[in-house]
Amino acid sequence: MPSHSKRGAEVPHSPIRSLLPYAKAAKAQGKHIFHLNIGQPDIETPVEALEAVHKSTGKIISYGPSEGIPSLRETVAGYYEKFDANLTANDIYVTTGASEAILFTLLACCDPGDEVIIPEPFYANYLGFAQMGAIHIVPLTTTLETQFRLPEPEVFEQLISPRTKAIFLCNPGNPTGQLYGHAELQKLMKLVRKHDLFLIVDEVYREFCYGKPFTSVLSFEEMEENVIVIDSISKVFSSCGARVGYLITKNRHLQRIVDKYAQLRLSPPYFGQLLAEACYLHAGDYIERAKAEYDRRRHVLYEGLSSIEGVECYMPEAAFYNMAGLPVTDAAHFCKWLLTDFELDGNTVMLAPGNGFYFHKEPGKNQVRIAYILNEQDLRHAVECLKEALKRYSLIYGEYSTGKVVVREWE
Amino acid sequence: MPSHSKRGAEVPHSPIRSLLPYAKAAKAQGKHIFHLNIGQPDIETPVEALEAVHKSTGKIISYGPSEGIPSLRETVAGYYEKFDANLTANDIYVTTGASEAILFTLLACCDPGDEVIIPEPFYANYLGFAQMGAIHIVPLTTTLETQFRLPEPEVFEQLISPRTKAIFLCNPGNPTGQLYGHAELQKLMKLVRKHDLFLIVDEVYREFCYGKPFTSVLSFEEMEENVIVIDSISKVFSSCGARVGYLITKNRHLQRIVDKYAQLRLSPPYFGQLLAEACYLHAGDYIERAKAEYDRRRHVLYEGLSSIEGVECYMPEAAFYNMAGLPVTDAAHFCKWLLTDFELDGNTVMLAPGNGFYFHKEPGKNQVRIAYILNEQDLRHAVECLKEALKRYSLIYGEYSTGKVVVREWE
Repeated sequence: MPSHSKRGAEVPHSPIRSLLPYAKAAKAQGKHIFHLNIGQPDIETPVEALEAVHKSTGKIISYGPSEGIPSLRETVAGYYEKFDANLTANDIYVTTGASEAILFTLLACCDPGDEVIIPEPFYANYLGFAQMGAIHIVPLTTTLETQFRLPEPEVFEQLISPRTKAIFLCNPGNPTGQLYGHAELQKLMKLVRKHDLFLIVDEVYREFCYGKPFTSVLSFEEMEENVIVIDSISKVFSSCGARVGYLITKNRHLQRIVDKYAQLRLSPPYFGQLLAEACYLHAGDYIERAKAEYDRRRHVLYEGLSSIEGVECYMPEAAFYNMAGLPVTDAAHFCKWLLTDFELDGNTVMLAPGNGFYFHKEPGKNQVRIAYILNEQDLRHAVECLKEALKRYSLIYGEYSTGKVVVREWE
Repeated sequence: MPSHSKRGAEVPHSPIRSLLPYAKAAKAQGKHIFHLNIGQPDIETPVEALEAVHKSTGKIISYGPSEGIPSLRETVAGYYEKFDANLTANDIYVTTGASEAILFTLLACCDPGDEVIIPEPFYANYLGFAQMGAIHIVPLTTTLETQFRLPEPEVFEQLISPRTKAIFLCNPGNPTGQLYGHAELQKLMKLVRKHDLFLIVDEVYREFCYGKPFTSVLSFEEMEENVIVIDSISKVFSSCGARVGYLITKNRHLQRIVDKYAQLRLSPPYFGQLLAEACYLHAGDYIERAKAEYDRRRHVLYEGLSSIEGVECYMPEAAFYNMAGLPVTDAAHFCKWLLTDFELDGNTVMLAPGNGFYFHKEPGKNQVRIAYILNEQDLRHAVECLKEALKRYSLIYGEYSTGKVVVREWE
């Protein structure tokens, strides 16, 4: 039999999706699962956007421009004005989800063996796309104790090597819910200018900031040369399946490369682009309403988690995730057990094991990412499940001892 | 300014799209262009499939399964039965166009520095995806004189090195319109088994074979281990913008890798998948009608081209391309001139320069790929344009001399 590639074998498994077989089996047994494991909102897609697709009149679903439909690019350029960005349609490439924007960005900035510094925990798929391009991720560990705050530039600077090409942030943070402010970003911008690096910022959660204002790096003057922003309609407009994202840069050299990558895959999906444009033009106060809803859920989840003995967490400032420490030694095992061995009145919870969001597997070992993407009632039920599950789990596998579980046995 | 990657700078330009700026300028001047440069059919997408999208009832456009919607995979597995393929839904991965299937296939089979043998001329984007993965394409030149027929296995065998991982075919051929038959494929299958290689076959034009029957490598027993097939709804159902393709393999090891790549980019586009499923289920004799239409156009184009002095061409057996030799020394220059300097009653023609479909730039230098994707009347006009253009071009730039142009001058 011919042998597959080594790199293929080494593609990291998605920590968010790796529990899926157990979830399938649990559902087959009739269990109901509260899915808090994936950033898939339950809020309805703007009805005006769905209508734009339903009423589309095109008779031939043909290739569109590789860089995206012109009117969508214009619309998106206008949308960014509220973040003090000065963009033209030419600075915006429509991509097949943020996923493709991440891949194009990494390949356009980095050659094999180059390095990108990323604060961890980070969105796990960054690792997979970097691996596709043989790019090394250099993680900078942030901690639950400090609410995953961004370290000072000096700490970043220590990690810069001759192979470093970029610093990559997710702001607001997935999985942390942390929001980096203007001052912190300004400091990092100075650092990347000093070392001639790119600053790549994934801003897909920008619309969900609940207290402090959001600062987009698109508003910085240095944008012209050093910045690439990744965006998507998936979360903002609850349109994950439409597969529409953006790569935004004013750097002419990068634009020429992105042009070529975009041409290579011909065009982004047609219907998703129709939907996207209608989202911006006709969705009214949709974003405000979605944000208010997530804010309520944020409180429900935080209060629920705070009421569970041994759970370590904080009130996230943005996005719709809470990265919490559980009173278990191996959260991945606990997450699997939730699906295979636990139920409360026919229900269980699916969570994303924290270690999948770290390059170093140790620091996140007792953590889980909990997405507050269900309605308040379901969220309360899910927290009840989690509370009961932690109680039973500790009876089977260990006992609390200063918040740690002493492991008894498992496979 | 930070510097972009070398690999980004080296991404090959799309030969099909590189003339776009000139086309834009020509349109701005009011010229009408007959687009024979791109495989974008003018046949309408099945109306039943558009209706499936228009009537879709989902209220949340959420992530779907990474490997594709189950009912679509089932449907597609059923569709392949007519090609004597014995597939289950699990063997079929829905991808974002054939483009993504090509990328996943190459990355799953090859490590950086590995080699893939491809008969040239070939679909130019293979080169770009190979370059993304630092994979070397080893071209095997086929010639217009032999109607781009597949060489004997011995010729392939001479190119096999310790780094060779696969032989990659496009059958039916883009840009050649050539159809490889059962016997030829069987011989190549033996060869890949002997050397433990993969046989990758891009079959996106399979439905458009006008004489000889089509043989899919999916029908071969060796399919189990050695074969990967690339497919798409783009051409068959005139749905290029839907971005739905397939990667098909029964090799379990490859499946595990493709699973991970698929999870990495979350899911294929939702609406495109709805459209695709309806195409198979409700489009009736759509494919037969499309095929008959292309067949008529094939004759129109062939007869037209044959009537032009100095044009070398043959009747293609399949797909909707004719790779023709023109009486010019540099077809790329001629294609640009068609847009910048020529018009006949306000019309001109856009063609794809042949050298972009070759790894070695010399053999295709006087060739163009002509897509017969316009209706008969437009096609006749386009051929008239081409005939007149070649006449005028020869007056300006050279004179016929045993079918060759003596170059006078150009930039």
